[in-house]
Amino acid sequence: MVKKVDVLVIGGSAAGIVAATTGKAFYADKSFLVVRKEKEAVVPCGIPYIFGTLKTVEKNIIPEGHITDAGVELLCDEVTSIDKSEKRAETAGGISIAFDKLVIATGSLPKVPGWLKGTGLKNVFTIPKDKAYLAALNEHFDQSEKVVIIGGGFIGVELADELQKRGKAITLIEVMPHILNAAFDEEIGKRAEEILTEKGITLRLGCKVQALIGDEKVKAVQLSNGEEIEADTVILSTGYAPNVALAEKAGIKINELGSIRVDEYMRTEDKNIFAVGDCAEKFSFYTRIVKGLMLASTACSEARIAGMNLYKLSMLRTFSGTMSIFSTAIGGTTFASVGVTEQMAIERGFDIITGAVEGVDKHPKSLPNVSKQFVKLIVSRESGLILGGTVTGGASAGELINVLGVIISNKMTVHHVLSMQVATHPLLTSSPTSYPLIKAAEAVAKKIRDPKPVLH
Amino acid sequence: MVKKVDVLVIGGSAAGIVAATTGKAFYADKSFLVVRKEKEAVVPCGIPYIFGTLKTVEKNIIPEGHITDAGVELLCDEVTSIDKSEKRAETAGGISIAFDKLVIATGSLPKVPGWLKGTGLKNVFTIPKDKAYLAALNEHFDQSEKVVIIGGGFIGVELADELQKRGKAITLIEVMPHILNAAFDEEIGKRAEEILTEKGITLRLGCKVQALIGDEKVKAVQLSNGEEIEADTVILSTGYAPNVALAEKAGIKINELGSIRVDEYMRTEDKNIFAVGDCAEKFSFYTRIVKGLMLASTACSEARIAGMNLYKLSMLRTFSGTMSIFSTAIGGTTFASVGVTEQMAIERGFDIITGAVEGVDKHPKSLPNVSKQFVKLIVSRESGLILGGTVTGGASAGELINVLGVIISNKMTVHHVLSMQVATHPLLTSSPTSYPLIKAAEAVAKKIRDPKPVLH
Repeated sequence: MVKKVDVLVIGGSAAGIVAATTGKAFYADKSFLVVRKEKEAVVPCGIPYIFGTLKTVEKNIIPEGHITDAGVELLCDEVTSIDKSEKRAETAGGISIAFDKLVIATGSLPKVPGWLKGTGLKNVFTIPKDKAYLAALNEHFDQSEKVVIIGGGFIGVELADELQKRGKAITLIEVMPHILNAAFDEEIGKRAEEILTEKGITLRLGCKVQALIGDEKVKAVQLSNGEEIEADTVILSTGYAPNVALAEKAGIKINELGSIRVDEYMRTEDKNIFAVGDCAEKFSFYTRIVKGLMLASTACSEARIAGMNLYKLSMLRTFSGTMSIFSTAIGGTTFASVGVTEQMAIERGFDIITGAVEGVDKHPKSLPNVSKQFVKLIVSRESGLILGGTVTGGASAGELINVLGVIISNKMTVHHVLSMQVATHPLLTSSPTSYPLIKAAEAVAKKIRDPKPVLH
Repeated sequence: MVKKVDVLVIGGSAAGIVAATTGKAFYADKSFLVVRKEKEAVVPCGIPYIFGTLKTVEKNIIPEGHITDAGVELLCDEVTSIDKSEKRAETAGGISIAFDKLVIATGSLPKVPGWLKGTGLKNVFTIPKDKAYLAALNEHFDQSEKVVIIGGGFIGVELADELQKRGKAITLIEVMPHILNAAFDEEIGKRAEEILTEKGITLRLGCKVQALIGDEKVKAVQLSNGEEIEADTVILSTGYAPNVALAEKAGIKINELGSIRVDEYMRTEDKNIFAVGDCAEKFSFYTRIVKGLMLASTACSEARIAGMNLYKLSMLRTFSGTMSIFSTAIGGTTFASVGVTEQMAIERGFDIITGAVEGVDKHPKSLPNVSKQFVKLIVSRESGLILGGTVTGGASAGELINVLGVIISNKMTVHHVLSMQVATHPLLTSSPTSYPLIKAAEAVAKKIRDPKPVLH
């Protein structure tokens, strides 16, 4: 069977959906087809919450209407090959799809460390974006008591937090000295560790896993020092690899980190083929260093860029580099970050000053349900340009990080922040006299003015 | 007694405090003195919450440490006159203060309509920033049952919301067809009205008050149609007037709205005398029209500008005009606005397009405690420049309006917003595929592309 469409999108998670629907909104006379394996796609960042707060996978589904209501066709099938020169894709269901433009949004797959023994044992799981797999895992947890999570990144930490709510005994193993080390400086990671420890989660930091042990089923996790940690379930949350097998086979260029190489408009070297989301190349907003960050929000931003530029390029609509902007909630406390951390800035050679301030997220602080709010800024010493920032606090910190995101994307300095106008309200924000973001900028400005030799 | 200081600040509420402490941070070798009448200053925007959530005035005090910890001296006294040429101020306590620089932060006073009969009756109150007055009013409410609030601005609405929690029968009278009309378009004001009505507050919209009736104590409020509304307490929340008597007497220039005239650096025509906060001139960020808006957050922003520019001007540190950025919570729903409303934009002659989108503030929406989140953008048709926006939703909307504030202050267009990167998280924000702020920008961009004649 042969099918002809103007725009073919391979992959129907966040990035694929947004690329298709944005494209359709901008080029209404073109036909759009999304092909994905799954009948229903899970909300990617909602996955950890399936196992605690949400209780079922069914509550974590992206509504199909997101695609079809926008006038985009959805096909449940698997693309098995792409012919770039013929502009055709073949599916497992035997359909040959002729396209004019192609968007690859094939996402990522959980990494299973090749050097780790025992990953094939029963009750060893990863966290893929796969509804059936996640539903089975969720049922499995009913029979599970001792869970070891390997990897203290966002997924591992969020999963630990949720499974603890479900009454499981959780051990979280991280090879680095602190959890969330790709996102936060040490002092912030420590705060998260305190929260998890208080909740009764066992943290094993700076520990390397050597093997998973068991006969048929996993029984324990062995560390490199020989110590064994008992487990009836092991979760590998050791990162994700771009899913580029299809693109690679089609001769589309892959970068040194294994992602599909793209330009400012999310185009591959073939100008009719775009790539977006976890499978596409990422580079840093400030340094243009190629990086491996995967976030649904970044993916959606890239997908919008691709969708808008499918048939004609617009200088206004380029992707300016990944800002690494993200947030999570750990034991009810928000941890959020944008741009570089202090550690990263130093590693990359920036001459920086930092400023950190702790306040509260409502005012006066005698109000009920007040949380502490902490803001740290990483600033270029000479220019005052804000390179990055971290926020922790109550739920409102989840949008406060986006205030900082717009500040950084506009390349604003601490001096601009000092004169910025903010809306403040007793029940909603910190006070106008001590808004921590502005106070942190003040602290940095003071260090810039005061030229005595200080270590940031 | 004669006292000599480098910088004298008259008034010790939000603006005075921030002007003095910012100034001290930037000019550490100068001496700073704040003179204010009140031993303790109330948190201005916290005032309505004294009468419900907080329960006492004592819980709504700006800590004195805000001033003294910063190395600024605090004097509890009243400045009665200023001699500009001699650079001296006299106080009621008999002190003659010689200054080099002066910052006037005398705030505002509640307006009592001169044409309204009966305002002198017992149990008729205003809402001044006066601790003793507010404490007495709070005690009075213990004996009160039927409260009529005249004026449906922020203070009137927040007070109604809080007093209702305290079990009072509340009637809110507004002369305009909708409450909060200075801040929100009609359809948003209506949402707020629905919430108040559901809580059992009686709204009388488009009603003009003619007289307050009673012998010694107030008994009723008479409308212009002769109808009488029973009341044992009447609150006049009909706005505030800049408190400029002292400045005027000193020969400092006052503008047509009764505020102290200032330049980009918050300086009066005398370059050694600054004015900040409610008593100082405000002008619009987009039109430079002089306006009468009074907000603690704007006041603090102005105060920072003044503090930084006391001894030398910096082009980076000017006040770019009032953005009218504010937020409130009505019955637990956040209402926030920045820049012009649709109505204002039309009145001021802007050729505009609007886009409005409703989503949710967490994702998936099956999570607990999800609130609707509504974003409306007011955009210049030809340039795509965002002129204003409104957000309603859960508590996170209080910081989301600040995201929009930074967008507007950077003169960003909807096209920039379409490619912006945001942090999203299930428990903290809407989803990356349907972030309402970006979806509203998409809706506007679609109208810009589609040239069929539409009314915004």
